[in-house]
Formats: sequence, C-alpha cells, structure tokens
Amino acid sequence: MIKESEEDMAVVLIGHGSKMAYNKELLDGLQRLMELRGVFKDVRVAFMQLNSPSIEEVLRELAKSGIKKIVAVPVFLADGTHTTEDIPETLKIAFEGEWAELGRDVELIYGKPIGVDERIVDILLDRVKAAEAGNGE
Amino acid sequence: MIKESEEDMAVVLIGHGSKMAYNKELLDGLQRLMELRGVFKDVRVAFMQLNSPSIEEVLRELAKSGIKKIVAVPVFLADGTHTTEDIPETLKIAFEGEWAELGRDVELIYGKPIGVDERIVDILLDRVKAAEAGNGE
Repeated sequence: MIKESEEDMAVVLIGHGSKMAYNKELLDGLQRLMELRGVFKDVRVAFMQLNSPSIEEVLRELAKSGIKKIVAVPVFLADGTHTTEDIPETLKIAFEGEWAELGRDVELIYGKPIGVDERIVDILLDRVKAAEAGNGE
Repeated sequence: MIKESEEDMAVVLIGHGSKMAYNKELLDGLQRLMELRGVFKDVRVAFMQLNSPSIEEVLRELAKSGIKKIVAVPVFLADGTHTTEDIPETLKIAFEGEWAELGRDVELIYGKPIGVDERIVDILLDRVKAAEAGNGE
C-alpha cells in the first residue's frame, strides 16, 4: 500500500549504462511508466557509466530541489559487483566533500535488484510465445 | 494461450554468467518457477560465460534427447552486444562441424530480452517499498 509520505519522495532508477542505445531506452521507458503511476514526487533515471545523467548529478539535482527522501533502486536483474560495490560507493561519495552540506538532510535509501519473481517468469513466457509467433507459428 | 505443440518444446533461459553466485542463482530460480508452470517439455538454464552449463552443452543435450523445437530466450533486461551478437553467434555455431548432423532436424528459435514492461515497474515499486521498510518505516 502506498503511504502519504511517498508523495514527498523521489525514486532514482539506476541503470548500468551502455555505448548502445538499448539500456538508456529501457531506463527511460521504465521511468515514464513509473511516473505515470503518480506515486512519487519525482522519478529520475541515472546511469552507473557511459550514459548521462550520472548518479552523482541526479542525487545532487534532487537535493538542490529540496527533496528530503530518495530511494535509489538498481535496475538490474541480479546482484553483482555493480550493485554491491560500484553503485553503493558512488551513492556514498555523491554528497561528500563540497557536497556534504547539500546531502546532510537528505535520507538516501538503496534498494535491491529485481531478482527471482513470478512476474519475470510471466514476461519470459510472453517472450517465448512472441518468438514462436515471429517464426510464423 | 499455450498451444498443444509447446508440450514438445524446450525452453533455454540464457544467462550472462558471473564469477559471483547471484546470476546463476537468478537463472536457477527462474528455471524452477517456469518448470512449475508445466508448460514446456523441458526448461533449461545456460550461460553465455563463466558459469556452467554453456549454451553449446545445453543445445546439444536437448538435441540428443530428441527435442525438435527449442526456444532460447536471453534473460537480460535489454538488448546489447551480448544479446545481438555474442549469444546469436554461439547459437549459430552450436550445431556446426561435428554437430551438424545432430542439429539438422532441430528448430531453434531465439527470443527477445525482457524490455520495458509494466510488470517490471510493479516489481520496482515493490523493491522501493521493501527498501523503505528496511529502513524501519
């Protein structure tokens, strides 16, 4: 159940980033759909590498905008060095140094990746059926 | 709607593979859930790299078992060089050379990755709520 407080919360969808357009298209598409749910005050996309905006840029923009609570979720299927080391380290340093003041009153929460879920199985079953249909069956 | 013919079909869930356990745990978990759906004659996991079994191993095992139709789906969130180049190349060569005979009567269909989907947004919303709960809210 969505709580009132979440109306004052921003969500940052963190993508891997890629030289190809696909990962950014995925994150932008998910961001639009989540924004349409109208649950959070702000829904942003940020990339670990290669694409823009960076995690640091987005966290600092949100802090400047006055958001006091940010939940950052890695849009990854499973944990790995990116979600357990690289991204947490970037989140930790985003408000350090000259930015310490900016982040002092911001509650930053880091979520878990997608993981094993029946809804992923539902999607994979759809992809299997679409692949068959694509072969004229 | 599931068709009768799919009862004679095998699905191969293709994972990225990783030195860490998370990716294999994800694929194994999704494989178990899909197997429980009871839709396909066989549901296997195969890895592009680092984990076992390999894509070649699984395709050849299935062909030897007499399966005539295999749908291989990349368990990736979005397309990239892995899904558009690396995996298709491996699928193409799996039955070449000494294996040409084995694969001659096997219909091999390659599916699309997960992509933008409302069900992914549902999962991400759950992860956001779980992250908040984890912070005692």
